[in-house]
Amino acid sequence: MKKPLILITNDDGVHAPGIRFLIETIRPLGDVLVVAPDKPQSAMGHAVTIQVPLRLHMLDEQPGYREYSCNGTPADCIKLGEKVILRGKPDMIVSGINHGSNASINVLYSGTMAAVIEGAMENIPAIGFSLNDYSHAADFSHCAKIITSVAANVLKNGLPDGICLNVNIPSRNGSPIKGIKVTRQAKAFWDENFDERKDPHKRDYYWLRGDFVNLDKGEDNDHWAISNNYVSIVPIQIDLTAHHMIDSIKKWELEA
Amino acid sequence: MKKPLILITNDDGVHAPGIRFLIETIRPLGDVLVVAPDKPQSAMGHAVTIQVPLRLHMLDEQPGYREYSCNGTPADCIKLGEKVILRGKPDMIVSGINHGSNASINVLYSGTMAAVIEGAMENIPAIGFSLNDYSHAADFSHCAKIITSVAANVLKNGLPDGICLNVNIPSRNGSPIKGIKVTRQAKAFWDENFDERKDPHKRDYYWLRGDFVNLDKGEDNDHWAISNNYVSIVPIQIDLTAHHMIDSIKKWELEA
Repeated sequence: MKKPLILITNDDGVHAPGIRFLIETIRPLGDVLVVAPDKPQSAMGHAVTIQVPLRLHMLDEQPGYREYSCNGTPADCIKLGEKVILRGKPDMIVSGINHGSNASINVLYSGTMAAVIEGAMENIPAIGFSLNDYSHAADFSHCAKIITSVAANVLKNGLPDGICLNVNIPSRNGSPIKGIKVTRQAKAFWDENFDERKDPHKRDYYWLRGDFVNLDKGEDNDHWAISNNYVSIVPIQIDLTAHHMIDSIKKWELEA
Repeated sequence: MKKPLILITNDDGVHAPGIRFLIETIRPLGDVLVVAPDKPQSAMGHAVTIQVPLRLHMLDEQPGYREYSCNGTPADCIKLGEKVILRGKPDMIVSGINHGSNASINVLYSGTMAAVIEGAMENIPAIGFSLNDYSHAADFSHCAKIITSVAANVLKNGLPDGICLNVNIPSRNGSPIKGIKVTRQAKAFWDENFDERKDPHKRDYYWLRGDFVNLDKGEDNDHWAISNNYVSIVPIQIDLTAHHMIDSIKKWELEA
């Protein structure tokens, strides 16, 4: 049987411990191509690079394994991997392991998940893995079994066109993982502010900072799951239409 | 009656003709605060700036009108406008007029729409306007009546939490606009490739280019509408959960 070809990327950069752990975990499942940013690209959302030319740099080549870095975003990495290196589609895309949760609305800010959504746009089964721990030195060891299980299921079952998975894993906290929950995106938000400072020339500048606030009382959402030591899987769709709103807006008195 | 306070941004930059036209069209409806990028930020998706400090630069101040540029993304502009300048929420956010369509999956790449989605995350009624014409010198004159009508309806009717509007307007083509359709996001994609070139040092570099391909045969989608000289309004939601997929994934044999 032909081995599946798996494209791996992330948004923390090719040297981040999260992607190194993901690569080692995924390699037994198939042939692997890594194309990942040469520097951190967190919070880049679904940015693509159109103002500067993109470059690829080969880092490693072995039987069944190739690794490149690129000066672009995670979405760029997926496009370059397919169009320039593979000249075709991989069987699956995996992205991560993100250093930090991509639960709830973080899916919209995340470069890791943008790469996954890029896969869904091209009808390639795609999974994003994130660990609820921002530390560079986070312990990923409990993620291996989860990643292998979810990836093997996606290779076996596929995913419908336009659908991808957002997998969030609790941080290693001494208690065993209770299980896996298939959930929905929590209705949470960032309570943000800016640190306001003055530079040596007395000019103002601002640093974004925020606290994540979950007002969602459900126990079927992703934030609840990872806060209660469950792995969360949210199926994500690229159709953003609020279909239930179409009829009520049709009743407005609109003029062109 | 207190005038509504309207926050305006875009992704083509504060000096783009599209936002200048939008500002002039919106000003009669309320007090206006403009916070827009100091340079083009197209295709930035929902990027936010966390690696460099943000700066604001006041460009204009008149009764009922203030205008700033910022070195960040459209999503940053919304956050800075609220947290640093207003120290509160506006009554409405409008973004655009984007030079180029944001129909179909372009909603996911668009900085203009990221600012609008940012509004929906904070439960502020928000509208993105885009013209199906990439030209810097595009004719926006037919957009004024549409913008005024949609904005007045949103001020009057509000929008539910987590919902915003993606309004796409056909280019000026000699024929009158046929009307306004409330539609869904078309199932289309970008057929992309890279221009592969060599720099003077013989190193490879790549430019992304692509053709937009619509395989969606429906006549109820946004791409069909603007291609047939109708204005399209798609209600967009920030919940990306594919709720219909949850039960089928629960049947997988998953192990943690």
